Amino acid sequence: MFLGKNFVVTFHLQPSSEIDEAWKRITGQTDLREKGQLYAAYLVMDKLVDQYFPAVYQLEDQLSESESARKSIQALMDDIFEIRAKLLKLRKTILPMRDLLYRILNSERIEGVKEHLAYFTDIYDHLLKLSEMIESNREMTADMRDSYISINSNRMNAIMKTLTVITTIFMPLTFIAGIYGMNFEYMPELKWNWGYFTVLGVMFSIGFGMYVWFRRKGWFD
Amino acid sequence: MFLGKNFVVTFHLQPSSEIDEAWKRITGQTDLREKGQLYAAYLVMDKLVDQYFPAVYQLEDQLSESESARKSIQALMDDIFEIRAKLLKLRKTILPMRDLLYRILNSERIEGVKEHLAYFTDIYDHLLKLSEMIESNREMTADMRDSYISINSNRMNAIMKTLTVITTIFMPLTFIAGIYGMNFEYMPELKWNWGYFTVLGVMFSIGFGMYVWFRRKGWFD
Amino acid sequence: MFLGKNFVVTFHLQPSSEIDEAWKRITGQTDLREKGQLYAAYLVMDKLVDQYFPAVYQLEDQLSESESARKSIQALMDDIFEIRAKLLKLRKTILPMRDLLYRILNSERIEGVKEHLAYFTDIYDHLLKLSEMIESNREMTADMRDSYISINSNRMNAIMKTLTVITTIFMPLTFIAGIYGMNFEYMPELKWNWGYFTVLGVMFSIGFGMYVWFRRKGWFD
Amino acid sequence: MFLGKNFVVTFHLQPSSEIDEAWKRITGQTDLREKGQLYAAYLVMDKLVDQYFPAVYQLEDQLSESESARKSIQALMDDIFEIRAKLLKLRKTILPMRDLLYRILNSERIEGVKEHLAYFTDIYDHLLKLSEMIESNREMTADMRDSYISINSNRMNAIMKTLTVITTIFMPLTFIAGIYGMNFEYMPELKWNWGYFTVLGVMFSIGFGMYVWFRRKGWFD
Amino acid sequence: MFLGKNFVVTFHLQPSSEIDEAWKRITGQTDLREKGQLYAAYLVMDKLVDQYFPAVYQLEDQLSESESARKSIQALMDDIFEIRAKLLKLRKTILPMRDLLYRILNSERIEGVKEHLAYFTDIYDHLLKLSEMIESNREMTADMRDSYISINSNRMNAIMKTLTVITTIFMPLTFIAGIYGMNFEYMPELKWNWGYFTVLGVMFSIGFGMYVWFRRKGWFD
Repeated sequence: MFLGKNFVVTFHLQPSSEIDEAWKRITGQTDLREKGQLYAAYLVMDKLVDQYFPAVYQLEDQLSESESARKSIQALMDDIFEIRAKLLKLRKTILPMRDLLYRILNSERIEGVKEHLAYFTDIYDHLLKLSEMIESNREMTADMRDSYISINSNRMNAIMKTLTVITTIFMPLTFIAGIYGMNFEYMPELKWNWGYFTVLGVMFSIGFGMYVWFRRKGWFD
Repeated sequence: MFLGKNFVVTFHLQPSSEIDEAWKRITGQTDLREKGQLYAAYLVMDKLVDQYFPAVYQLEDQLSESESARKSIQALMDDIFEIRAKLLKLRKTILPMRDLLYRILNSERIEGVKEHLAYFTDIYDHLLKLSEMIESNREMTADMRDSYISINSNRMNAIMKTLTVITTIFMPLTFIAGIYGMNFEYMPELKWNWGYFTVLGVMFSIGFGMYVWFRRKGWFD
Repeated sequence: MFLGKNFVVTFHLQPSSEIDEAWKRITGQTDLREKGQLYAAYLVMDKLVDQYFPAVYQLEDQLSESESARKSIQALMDDIFEIRAKLLKLRKTILPMRDLLYRILNSERIEGVKEHLAYFTDIYDHLLKLSEMIESNREMTADMRDSYISINSNRMNAIMKTLTVITTIFMPLTFIAGIYGMNFEYMPELKWNWGYFTVLGVMFSIGFGMYVWFRRKGWFD
Repeated sequence: MFLGKNFVVTFHLQPSSEIDEAWKRITGQTDLREKGQLYAAYLVMDKLVDQYFPAVYQLEDQLSESESARKSIQALMDDIFEIRAKLLKLRKTILPMRDLLYRILNSERIEGVKEHLAYFTDIYDHLLKLSEMIESNREMTADMRDSYISINSNRMNAIMKTLTVITTIFMPLTFIAGIYGMNFEYMPELKWNWGYFTVLGVMFSIGFGMYVWFRRKGWFD
Repeated sequence: MFLGKNFVVTFHLQPSSEIDEAWKRITGQTDLREKGQLYAAYLVMDKLVDQYFPAVYQLEDQLSESESARKSIQALMDDIFEIRAKLLKLRKTILPMRDLLYRILNSERIEGVKEHLAYFTDIYDHLLKLSEMIESNREMTADMRDSYISINSNRMNAIMKTLTVITTIFMPLTFIAGIYGMNFEYMPELKWNWGYFTVLGVMFSIGFGMYVWFRRKGWFD
């Protein structure tokens, strides 16, 4: 059976106790001769493929845990990056398997496939389901990342508005205070009786005018 | 009929009253024997698939509502994220169904499919339509998010320009005022009769020069 | 002809005067009986599909107009968002039509398709062309948006550099001026004959040093 | 030959001297009757497709030139945008041609294709190669743009760190200097013999403390 | 054999010692006549394809090295850009090869392919595996870049918060100090016995109030 080589090339799985178990069950079966090699191949492949479901479900759980755990954003980004990397590894294993199964299903050369088509279609369905789950989870993580980036860019705007409002209001005022802190001998305003209160009034007007201007521009929404 | 197992694997639907109803209608029909199992399968699958249309339409409505509701951007981003997650869940259910239907349509093994092809083509069309609607809505939300990010980055530029203009004009002026506020015993300018007004003139020239420079750079467009 | 239902499901077009016209032309033809139902179907579908070309060309024109109109960036982003939404709507109509035509072309069940294949291939070509145009325009708009975002992020850098250069040069200088503006009774420097000019010299050295440092870091390129 | 119409629809090429030349060569050949119409079609299509290779190679050259020319980032972004737009135009022409060839290759209706399959396979290979080159170059430009955006965002961080370090160190110090620049009649510290030096010491401690704090946070890496 | 031309067009490989070696091995084999031309073609193609595995593995190693080397972000971005460009070049070579093999596998015209199908399926599997590895690595690098961008945008927020907190607290305080540094002759507060300490108290209250406000807004999380 020419499938042998492809298995070695494509699956890259360590000899696991699960496969051993499947093997035992196969060799222990008395009616194996009747069901033939392909049924044995089906049993092994079914075990192999079913092993990936818990892995994907675990990553899904890890993802929803990370999301609800109210971690710092950097920790969340690290989690997302890690989960994406694991999903990528899974995909690298599952996509070639899926393509292999597809070719087995459509092959006219492997004798006996026609008779066991329902079995292999079953495995193929599981692989389709797996690859769709992996793709969905990758898109979910991409959405989470993009969502945080857009929220971040929004927060940044709010922070910058605060900074700009404060700077724009207080810089001109501090400048005016600086002018009347100069030590020139001849500065007529300094001698005026109401000079101090006039300047305070001017400062208040400027500050209030800035505030109204920002409010009109909608910076405090 | 080997479809049975696939249904359980692929559809993952809770027993719903709709299916019960369809089932009753099927079992109540006297001519079922004539129309056969595949017609029954068609009735159930048609009910199942049609259940998804209201779900997608509802998400479309939710999306256009969110867009027109003039919410805060963060609330809108949360809405978009939620809608995208729901669309992803729907896609995870519908894509494998579509693939299953495709294989039923092209299968040469299931007897009777040829005779009922028009029925199954109808379901397949609905699934194609559904998956195209889901994909379009996901792209619509991605467009909305990208659009807001680019508008945000544009607003940020405007905010930063305001901040930079204010800082660039007032920092040098405040520095000059600071110089003449120093208490050195020998500062010749302080004794000059027109020192104060000269400095005020210099300050005004610097401020006005900065303003012209920024205007030439197109920062006030 | 089982196509009937699919049409209703897939096309979603209001009864238009164009179709009425095509219908009249068909029913008015005396040789219709010879050419058959499929020729009539071809005439209607051809009219339907050709209606979409002006729509796509109009969006292309709108796009190039928006680009060359030197609008504000926010207005341009709004235009792009609107055009993308319209393209998405068109795609939602044209992709299922394309898939339907593909299935008609490859169907072996509809009698007479073989004889009229050239007609339906023609419509299929137009639909392929349409979907490729829609996809290209969507990518064009995405390119425009990404291009503006990257230019924006570049301008932001320039703005921030201006702000940082000004702040970094004038903050330390203003601080030094502030020190000698303190009113302590015992501040030996204030009594020095050349104290004022020494401090001015130190300030100039610091400012010039900062300038050289920024120039070496390539901030003025 | 029904290909005629498709050519007009799909290729959209101005009558060029190259085609004229090919046409002359065809009509000048005495053995054309033997080789048949499809060989003539092959000659024209081969000329047409080969015309696109120099165009794509030229865009590739333009791309690598732009990259190595050390232009300003904005000029580079403009170049990239322009190159992407041209690649998109090329793709809009080549993808439908590729699909057309694919259908010619798989058509069972056009007589004589089977005999000339090697010729048309050759053109199809060139079109595949072209579309893959266009796709690769588009991804290359997208990579360049994303790379510059991420480098830009990195530089922005560095700029903002400089600004924040300077502001965070000098704002509190300037504030302290401002306090002792106030003109209250009763400010005990001003009378102290070592008041000035104490304040200078406190200022230095604060500045140094800030510096150590930023260094620990890794802002100077 | 018509494959010849395609090879030249598609592979674009310099004459390498590996191919020479394969060639020698082929021509040296006595049973070549029995195994035929296609077996020879298989040997050459197998050598060619296997040459690409070390290249991809090397890029994978380079990627994981870059990631763990704790380089500066800009150096990492340069590495990622370079690796992506190399992967793109590899893809440009491997995708057309894969398509060629696919067509060889499904061709009914090349005699003898049916008999050697297992050999060519083996090469096709390797090409599928290669293209999947290349795609995965490209997505991995895109993930790394996006991850760094989102972390960067997060750091930027933290930096801006620091800047805004400092500015917002100290700007108003410096302004107040500036007011009482003005030299007006009539400023009643300056004469008050407890004026200085009152102002210090007011300043402390404002600073502390700002701190509490920022803490409530969650800026110190």
